[in-house]
Amino acid sequence: MPTATATLSVSFAPSKKPHLSFCPFGATSITLTNFTSPPIRRPMTTSAVSIEKETVISERPHTFLRQTDGEDNGSIRSRFQSMILEMQESVCGALEALDGAGKFKEDAWTRPGGGGGISRVLQDGAVFEKAGVNISVVYGVMPPEAYRAAKASAADQKPGPVPFFAAGISSVLHPKNPFAPTLHFNYRYFETDAPKDTPGAPRQWWFGGGTDLTPAYIFEEDVKHFHSVQKRACDKFDPSFYPRFKKWCDDYFFIKHRGKRRGLGGIFFDDLNDYDQEMLLSFATECADSVVPAYIPILEKRKDTPFNESQKAWQQLRSGRYVEFNLVYDRGTTFGLKTGGRIESILVSLPLTARWEYDHKPEEGSEEWKLLDACMNPKDWI
Amino acid sequence: MPTATATLSVSFAPSKKPHLSFCPFGATSITLTNFTSPPIRRPMTTSAVSIEKETVISERPHTFLRQTDGEDNGSIRSRFQSMILEMQESVCGALEALDGAGKFKEDAWTRPGGGGGISRVLQDGAVFEKAGVNISVVYGVMPPEAYRAAKASAADQKPGPVPFFAAGISSVLHPKNPFAPTLHFNYRYFETDAPKDTPGAPRQWWFGGGTDLTPAYIFEEDVKHFHSVQKRACDKFDPSFYPRFKKWCDDYFFIKHRGKRRGLGGIFFDDLNDYDQEMLLSFATECADSVVPAYIPILEKRKDTPFNESQKAWQQLRSGRYVEFNLVYDRGTTFGLKTGGRIESILVSLPLTARWEYDHKPEEGSEEWKLLDACMNPKDWI
Repeated sequence: MPTATATLSVSFAPSKKPHLSFCPFGATSITLTNFTSPPIRRPMTTSAVSIEKETVISERPHTFLRQTDGEDNGSIRSRFQSMILEMQESVCGALEALDGAGKFKEDAWTRPGGGGGISRVLQDGAVFEKAGVNISVVYGVMPPEAYRAAKASAADQKPGPVPFFAAGISSVLHPKNPFAPTLHFNYRYFETDAPKDTPGAPRQWWFGGGTDLTPAYIFEEDVKHFHSVQKRACDKFDPSFYPRFKKWCDDYFFIKHRGKRRGLGGIFFDDLNDYDQEMLLSFATECADSVVPAYIPILEKRKDTPFNESQKAWQQLRSGRYVEFNLVYDRGTTFGLKTGGRIESILVSLPLTARWEYDHKPEEGSEEWKLLDACMNPKDWI
Repeated sequence: MPTATATLSVSFAPSKKPHLSFCPFGATSITLTNFTSPPIRRPMTTSAVSIEKETVISERPHTFLRQTDGEDNGSIRSRFQSMILEMQESVCGALEALDGAGKFKEDAWTRPGGGGGISRVLQDGAVFEKAGVNISVVYGVMPPEAYRAAKASAADQKPGPVPFFAAGISSVLHPKNPFAPTLHFNYRYFETDAPKDTPGAPRQWWFGGGTDLTPAYIFEEDVKHFHSVQKRACDKFDPSFYPRFKKWCDDYFFIKHRGKRRGLGGIFFDDLNDYDQEMLLSFATECADSVVPAYIPILEKRKDTPFNESQKAWQQLRSGRYVEFNLVYDRGTTFGLKTGGRIESILVSLPLTARWEYDHKPEEGSEEWKLLDACMNPKDWI
């Protein structure tokens, strides 16, 4: 398979710090900050991030890390990779056990310069219409403009391109039963090297991720259970985490053109580096470990609930909104589409079936209306 | 209903001339050129186009033109509006007659400063799962940077904002039967005033539009018939039109992340102003008049063809690709979503039902495979 290079438009926006968001399914998205910029809308510039194109492989390798990164050298890179590999295994195991009929199909790929990924998809099972659980590891190069935090680099210096490393696990689970909610989770770790020719400049690193629930119908006990598990994971580390990341989640999964969130949230964070690195690795691991206890009990309860055609149609309408969010707003997805990431892995997040009715308005006070209301006015579930 | 202002990111890209694309369903999209720019990637800047928010009205007005534009003053604005109003009437009439069961529902709105629109949607009929035929008229203001063609304005002059007028008809028709193709057409006219404070600068105007066919299965006689009608309309005006606009269509409706077109094309043009204005008005009218003879005979033939579940699923997979194109690439749609246009009108272009299967690959040589091949390698149908 030929090797190709992905390019990316890099925008200089007045956010807090540079960040590179990990694509759910194999690509990586960057938003960069010019630290000298005033907090107003600024001109955008265009640059390029290069990531080598993937090559499909028949057997999954033991590691996607470059040899120089070692395998078990205790680095955060290496431990994060171990965590996401184990997580993929355990989540897929729990989902297969729940489904009873469907089996995950695995596709693996590498990139010539190091890195690669494993997509696992269960389609048209007994419980799930589609469930994707993907991991990937990316070695890439970003333009020096991306690396403005390097205070050591004087303005007249011309730093070289900045190598980066990113790894993550990402998953979207779409059940068939309209009373069983869709789940998304994604945990990722990112590191840059210092820019070439600027040896004094510091490395950058950060964690991102989250777990969120998208039901078509609200069962308060389910949503409370889900949020409680998220809160419990957060509270082990910092009491400020749950309220902060709950709000971040409500803000992020917002379908602007609808004025509504795609679902009932959970937690979401990005660019997290203002805590100890070990602590954040433990936190990300705890969050990932919480996926099964947060979700599986809900599915056990709802997977066999009887439903009628109009309830199924409502679920498919909600799946249409999910498609809108993912194709129009989700950073990882939109980046992946632009840069030629592995399309089937990126778009496994889309539901098997979706629906769009013109000007659909549920009757006020109905169960469908209550869901829309909660997507418009996020609640404190616990 | 409150009045709001839509804003738009304007990018300076190295294209031939400034152009403002009319949104299929009620908004307007601008790509601008800085004429002094070299043909390389250039910094982007952010500016704003303002369009007043729509107000729903219970009865459709006789005209959406401002009083100063007159009603029957023979201007291109006025005649173009008459053309699209008549076209909406005649196309909807033909579609209702074909469907036999479904009726169009009409929603109309105005904008406080002039302009407005009429959406007509037939949903869940006998033949169509969804058919939308919308017209709209927009009065807006674009930033002076948008108006670089004004050679009269010296560099040290600061021209004011540029008022513009845009009107169009746009339609997407999704039949239920997988052997009956989806159709899209859209015809639009655009005019600017001279920039305020720069009275010597010329007005700009142009026409855009096209009609294209998206089948799930290829019947060569249908595709040939469709393209022949397009060619006949083009040939009445200029022998170069059909080959040029056929290629433009193949290039525009390209789903980049799939490496395939969304369908089998037709004609598409934009920024057309290098012909006589009267001639182009006649041409747009001829194209719009050709919609019914190009499409209805195909539907008559295919609407009742027996089909099985797997053929329906294939049609829904193709509808998923349609959703991908419209949400990710279509200029009018993406602009409309960003600027707070009437969402239900913008997204009426989406199919009632769509489907995404992981890594779906039709068997080589199958009818499904032949369609993909034609979407990858556009053919000369006539």
